[in-house]
Amino acid sequence: MNDIPENSDSGGGRRRRGGGGAAARRAVRGSGQLASHRFITRKLAPFEVLGEEGLALIEANADRLLAEVGVEFREDEEALSMWRAAGADVDGERVRFPVGLCRSLLKSAPARFTQHARNPERSVEIGGDSTVFAPVYGPPFVRNLDEGRRYAHIEDFRNFVKLAYMAPAMHHSGGTLCEPVDLPVNKRHLDMLHAHIRYSDKPFMGSVTHPERAEDSVAMAKLVFGDAFVDDNCVLISLINANSPLVYDSTMLGALKVYARAGQATVISPFILAGAMSPVTVAGTLTQILAEAMVGMAFAQLCRPGAPVVFGTFASSISMQSGAPTFGTPEPSLVLYGAAQLARRLGVPFRSGGSLCGGKVPDAQAAYESAQTLLPTVMAGVNFALHSAGWLEGGLVSSYEKFVMDADQLAMMQRFAEGVDLTENGQAFEAFGEVAPGGHYLGCAHTQANFETAFYRSPIADNNSFEQWQAEGSKTAEQRANTIYKQWLKDYEAPAIDPAVEEAVGDFIKRKKESMPDAFT
Amino acid sequence: MNDIPENSDSGGGRRRRGGGGAAARRAVRGSGQLASHRFITRKLAPFEVLGEEGLALIEANADRLLAEVGVEFREDEEALSMWRAAGADVDGERVRFPVGLCRSLLKSAPARFTQHARNPERSVEIGGDSTVFAPVYGPPFVRNLDEGRRYAHIEDFRNFVKLAYMAPAMHHSGGTLCEPVDLPVNKRHLDMLHAHIRYSDKPFMGSVTHPERAEDSVAMAKLVFGDAFVDDNCVLISLINANSPLVYDSTMLGALKVYARAGQATVISPFILAGAMSPVTVAGTLTQILAEAMVGMAFAQLCRPGAPVVFGTFASSISMQSGAPTFGTPEPSLVLYGAAQLARRLGVPFRSGGSLCGGKVPDAQAAYESAQTLLPTVMAGVNFALHSAGWLEGGLVSSYEKFVMDADQLAMMQRFAEGVDLTENGQAFEAFGEVAPGGHYLGCAHTQANFETAFYRSPIADNNSFEQWQAEGSKTAEQRANTIYKQWLKDYEAPAIDPAVEEAVGDFIKRKKESMPDAFT
Repeated sequence: MNDIPENSDSGGGRRRRGGGGAAARRAVRGSGQLASHRFITRKLAPFEVLGEEGLALIEANADRLLAEVGVEFREDEEALSMWRAAGADVDGERVRFPVGLCRSLLKSAPARFTQHARNPERSVEIGGDSTVFAPVYGPPFVRNLDEGRRYAHIEDFRNFVKLAYMAPAMHHSGGTLCEPVDLPVNKRHLDMLHAHIRYSDKPFMGSVTHPERAEDSVAMAKLVFGDAFVDDNCVLISLINANSPLVYDSTMLGALKVYARAGQATVISPFILAGAMSPVTVAGTLTQILAEAMVGMAFAQLCRPGAPVVFGTFASSISMQSGAPTFGTPEPSLVLYGAAQLARRLGVPFRSGGSLCGGKVPDAQAAYESAQTLLPTVMAGVNFALHSAGWLEGGLVSSYEKFVMDADQLAMMQRFAEGVDLTENGQAFEAFGEVAPGGHYLGCAHTQANFETAFYRSPIADNNSFEQWQAEGSKTAEQRANTIYKQWLKDYEAPAIDPAVEEAVGDFIKRKKESMPDAFT
Repeated sequence: MNDIPENSDSGGGRRRRGGGGAAARRAVRGSGQLASHRFITRKLAPFEVLGEEGLALIEANADRLLAEVGVEFREDEEALSMWRAAGADVDGERVRFPVGLCRSLLKSAPARFTQHARNPERSVEIGGDSTVFAPVYGPPFVRNLDEGRRYAHIEDFRNFVKLAYMAPAMHHSGGTLCEPVDLPVNKRHLDMLHAHIRYSDKPFMGSVTHPERAEDSVAMAKLVFGDAFVDDNCVLISLINANSPLVYDSTMLGALKVYARAGQATVISPFILAGAMSPVTVAGTLTQILAEAMVGMAFAQLCRPGAPVVFGTFASSISMQSGAPTFGTPEPSLVLYGAAQLARRLGVPFRSGGSLCGGKVPDAQAAYESAQTLLPTVMAGVNFALHSAGWLEGGLVSSYEKFVMDADQLAMMQRFAEGVDLTENGQAFEAFGEVAPGGHYLGCAHTQANFETAFYRSPIADNNSFEQWQAEGSKTAEQRANTIYKQWLKDYEAPAIDPAVEEAVGDFIKRKKESMPDAFT
């Protein structure tokens, strides 16, 4: 892999001692693989698809939508009371919002915040000019070249935690890297959180499938970071999906309340397949996304003013013939850019994008679609990019091979976002004095001084001659990626952890598991 | 394919009657496939990677490079005399340029121009906010799934002309779609030009392998368009590579002189693998590109003031380990964006990018790399994008399957560049009144009214369920593309052509072929 300097940006918030730093540095020296970027600090201004007029139009439409149609808060009396108290018009479960109410509540939301990792060298900044890559979230299946497609197990989950830990430009350990369906539904969150805590020292996500599991996530985080630290700092970020169109359900609201009240971050994400869950146009979809995200983030501020929130959106389109979701097409890309602009105007961090695709295998379709999502993700200025590696088959599958392929692309994006080096060395004017017209630069002193870091080196791309490629077995990218992910798992060394923390976490899990029978639905 | 309206932008310059329009329209109605976009008119502002300070720095370095080091014009006394007369400092074959000389000469170059097609509905605008896609140029090999990789023949060339004709978002017929190595080196340009003229009615490129072949290209164009029209209008665009670093050779200069004096467009393209043919940094490479392009374009203005020129660059990086060219990596992407900015400041059209890749087969590597070149191509505001479909294996191979895969991506880019529809229908506010929270939009009136054109539909991407995909043979994108390119060739119908033109072109080719013996080197 590349020779990668650690990101030197200092994180906000208080720093903690972490156990993994020294081990991580040893691993770097040992394998040459573990130097991790902390996050991306973009040197390039985001690409924009809407002008002031378009943005104002969509904002006005969203305000009107919230005032006239409103949002349903289902099976959550407390939420309805809170909205009533805040001045919203509550009619049954339908809440309508006077123009300006949500924006006014959102004033307490931070524009950026630090999510702390147990290794402070891996804490991330979320917001502003930073981009944080997190892995795929949610698939019940896994795929690899050896076994094909099958249900995911906890061992796969641990493998993906390890791969995310090994990937230099993967800044985050993520959440449900795959759904370990071999474990009871009501207990698997404990093993998933354990894997993030034990097998990585990057920041991670909390459980949202039940308010009690959110409570467990906060409790386990306190064992790792300490009670007081967790109350004052963000150590968990969790994914709260709106039930689009215009509904929040009690499960998500329950988890949201737990995290917001604990001062932990929530990513409020309308999950939209445009044409089914939102109008069939880009501007209409943006209107709905803005309305839903504003309401969810404002609700988090009602729970605890100042609770970190992220304006999220997962938006794709559908095939109008079959109803199947489609990825990497132009309309979702326009939605992504537009939503990023709307989030910036609200002054909150933004989550969207990733390496999304509908491809069933890591072939050209999967790669085109992923690149057509990832590039917009970076160029729109996304702050938190879930699904940035490993996503396959519309999110039904976590792919081992695609994980390392995508990770390669992430590392390229890390480099791209640095922009153009305009130092004297970057200008390279002395090289022109060394090389005459018609000569070549390979051997010149400037090239020699820079060749190690000059160009991004992909571990997966084969740039050899056709003959050499043939002699090596005419392998596809998928076949090479198969070799690489296995090598990463072989090279993996767990980061060090304070034994007292490890024991406390283990005890907590044991106690919780013993406290209730297994449930499989 | 999509329901695609023809581009309604009116082309500049005088319009001619063409023979293909009616046939083309018939073909559209017949197969539903041939509605072609004329070119892209970008509604989105280009992405920029350099600020004013960086741009001025690179411009100053380029000026200094031209004044201090200069450029060699090899084996062309006439060119040296012309430079001497223009005020340059000529020392042997080395020409040094007083600061400002090239910029001053470039004032006569048009900011944008029309390249006429024999079917005026397919004429393209090159410059400003337009983007024209042209196919792969130059490979000696072809590849398809049935035969693997083999040398290219004239029949392949004709097939690629037909595929380019069939692809809705391929605006141009291109030039050397593949090198027909079965034909004599000194005559194959005649058959290639014939194929462009006969099997397509999109605009095409001239031969540059010998000044006499450039003369033939102009002569054949005159048979198609008429002598007077060719003298007053651009009907050919031709690729002139600088021999980087800082050399123009007599072959390229010879062709350049023919085309410029005939008032035809040249794309002056430093061909650079950074680290070998330019310094190993982005800013250093940009400096050299600017210097070389300015000199070549200024020379075209010396040949005929007002001759249309395009600031071209083909720039990629190399593996510093093996010296092999690499594609789709971040540094060439930064070069592309930066060079586009420099061209805009010069006020001339810009050529770069395409769907470049180093992959040997149309797999995930090829697709990631291609997307990582094509998206920057569009977002940088490239005006003429050679290699936009079919390029494989670092340009050694024209791939049938990749051609249709890339063409699919081009059609997506065409849609993306339209930006966000902010009309009342685009805002879709009435849809919110139709669908209650928790409902779905599939059946609502607004969706019904828009579903046919709402989202881009890929003919290659498989978005069906895993089970259906499996039942249909678990095909990769490459396998599906194999079926599609064959279908396109089957559906292809030649556009109509004036029989007198066809006969005149045929006679010319016959006479030329008989005038000299075959040569194979």
